[in-house]
Amino acid sequence: MPSTHRRIVLASRPEAEAGPENFRLEDVATPELRDGQVLVRHRFLTVDPYMRMRMNDVKSYVPPQALDETMGGGAAGEVVESRSPDFSPGDSVTGPGGWQEMSVLKASALRRVDAKLLPIETYLGPAGMPGVTAWYGTLKLIAPKPGETVVVSAAAGAVGGIAGQIARAAGARVVGVAGGPEKCRHVVDDLHFDACVDYKAADFDTALKDACPNGIDGIFENVGGAVLDACMRRLNPFARIALCGLISGGYSAKRLPLANVTPLLVTRARIQGFIISDHQDILAEAQADLAARLADGRLVWHRSVAEGLENTPAAFLGMLAGKNLGKQLVRLD
Amino acid sequence: MPSTHRRIVLASRPEAEAGPENFRLEDVATPELRDGQVLVRHRFLTVDPYMRMRMNDVKSYVPPQALDETMGGGAAGEVVESRSPDFSPGDSVTGPGGWQEMSVLKASALRRVDAKLLPIETYLGPAGMPGVTAWYGTLKLIAPKPGETVVVSAAAGAVGGIAGQIARAAGARVVGVAGGPEKCRHVVDDLHFDACVDYKAADFDTALKDACPNGIDGIFENVGGAVLDACMRRLNPFARIALCGLISGGYSAKRLPLANVTPLLVTRARIQGFIISDHQDILAEAQADLAARLADGRLVWHRSVAEGLENTPAAFLGMLAGKNLGKQLVRLD
Repeated sequence: MPSTHRRIVLASRPEAEAGPENFRLEDVATPELRDGQVLVRHRFLTVDPYMRMRMNDVKSYVPPQALDETMGGGAAGEVVESRSPDFSPGDSVTGPGGWQEMSVLKASALRRVDAKLLPIETYLGPAGMPGVTAWYGTLKLIAPKPGETVVVSAAAGAVGGIAGQIARAAGARVVGVAGGPEKCRHVVDDLHFDACVDYKAADFDTALKDACPNGIDGIFENVGGAVLDACMRRLNPFARIALCGLISGGYSAKRLPLANVTPLLVTRARIQGFIISDHQDILAEAQADLAARLADGRLVWHRSVAEGLENTPAAFLGMLAGKNLGKQLVRLD
Repeated sequence: MPSTHRRIVLASRPEAEAGPENFRLEDVATPELRDGQVLVRHRFLTVDPYMRMRMNDVKSYVPPQALDETMGGGAAGEVVESRSPDFSPGDSVTGPGGWQEMSVLKASALRRVDAKLLPIETYLGPAGMPGVTAWYGTLKLIAPKPGETVVVSAAAGAVGGIAGQIARAAGARVVGVAGGPEKCRHVVDDLHFDACVDYKAADFDTALKDACPNGIDGIFENVGGAVLDACMRRLNPFARIALCGLISGGYSAKRLPLANVTPLLVTRARIQGFIISDHQDILAEAQADLAARLADGRLVWHRSVAEGLENTPAAFLGMLAGKNLGKQLVRLD
């Protein structure tokens, strides 16, 4: 058993854009296990947009990430040592282990996963938090009816790619919005959306209109800004907008305006902000449904994998800048 | 029976702000009654914000007002002649009679009202469409819990004044927003809101903060713009915003931005646009509840009454400019 392991801590808070200088790689003593605790060796880490919000020292739905502490976040791996009757060495688990090579956690914080059914990293992606987020926003907030049109922004991302497939399985016409032709091809060819519109293209507005000839009934919104503004101009009566993220603002402190509120009134639309941690009541149902769809191929996903703990900040910053395709993960040795 | 009566038609569409030049007073032949129709002499007309939206020739939740036709809108009065078994001369009714001295309507378009229980004009105000709008938005969309804080904009208006009283009866702390000290006094002294903040005052932001020491859980929004932006900065988790109107934009074609969408995500808030005509299913329950509260004094209201059909455009334009206190009505001789 090693007495130390490597971790990445938050070294400083960003003024505006986050950068590599905000993180520090260091060695830390691996804590001794106490009763009820489990030592997990991490095989995969996940980097997610909400982590950027936690880097700010402001009131939000999650407390700020503490300075000089291990960056929080999900990890998947195997139990190495257990002082809990619920876990044994070799068990595959996920938990809030953070950006480090191993973690000591209470057994109650861990989830046992079936690494024979699905590759273990799936439980950090479409069978985990991003998948459950997509499932809840699509099925519980948008609730698409057959023949309706649902637009999904950041469609090539970890959440958007799953949300669109779930909406399409419910019978909707699904139009993705993504940045650049490569992502748009991926969304249509690999994820089987009906169409995908490049928000970086000069003809974005016209292309969105052409892709939504019957207007827009639902929006799974991960982006905000000009993308949301364009969708708002095409809303049908009684449209539902699941507001999951606003990555176009970079989750910095700057304001992110909406160009025009009037369509909400005229179409009697609904915007509902949501954070999946509020909805633990649907977790088991959603995880089971997602795992079943993934196991039989009804749901597909793409992963971008960085190698080595030391590359976690770069993977995170790249994800914020939209450089990843699908779920951004970090593989540890 | 006179063979003609006076009416006001839409003479032209406004470029930006509506003005008296958009209306024309004229004589019109009173139609002969056909089977199933009723002739009503109007005693009161109502002028409401939605009428401004109908003056634009744009797709909206109601079709545009036709040029050179009688301005549409609610009226209250007595049946003069009836070719329907459902109504007799002398019956008190409300209906979509429009801006004219009398109207011929299908019996099914009329509602019989109890002018002994409440003054007949009450059925154009708190016991009619504005009251039902306030009832639905407050009880069905905001659904305030005891101890929560609800902000009502245009609190001295026909809908806001009722919405706030209903929220307060449900146990909420209710804070009005209105323009000028006279309106604010009225909202607190006469309508019994807990507080009212003057949005025209230089210290509006601070005063709103002081009036909402525990943040904001619900907003009954009639205004939009800077008033809504200020409220958005004080949202509590899981806040509900009933979006009823956006009069700060004047219902012209210009865009009405929201300064910052981020609070919707951080607080997991909901904005729901609504138009009461979509919710006929609650009409009978709401009208009965409102009439009972009005009859026993639990609900109070104020009316601003203009005299004479010829003064209807001025009353309407004054209401859009916020010159009225409470429900703006027009009394006919």
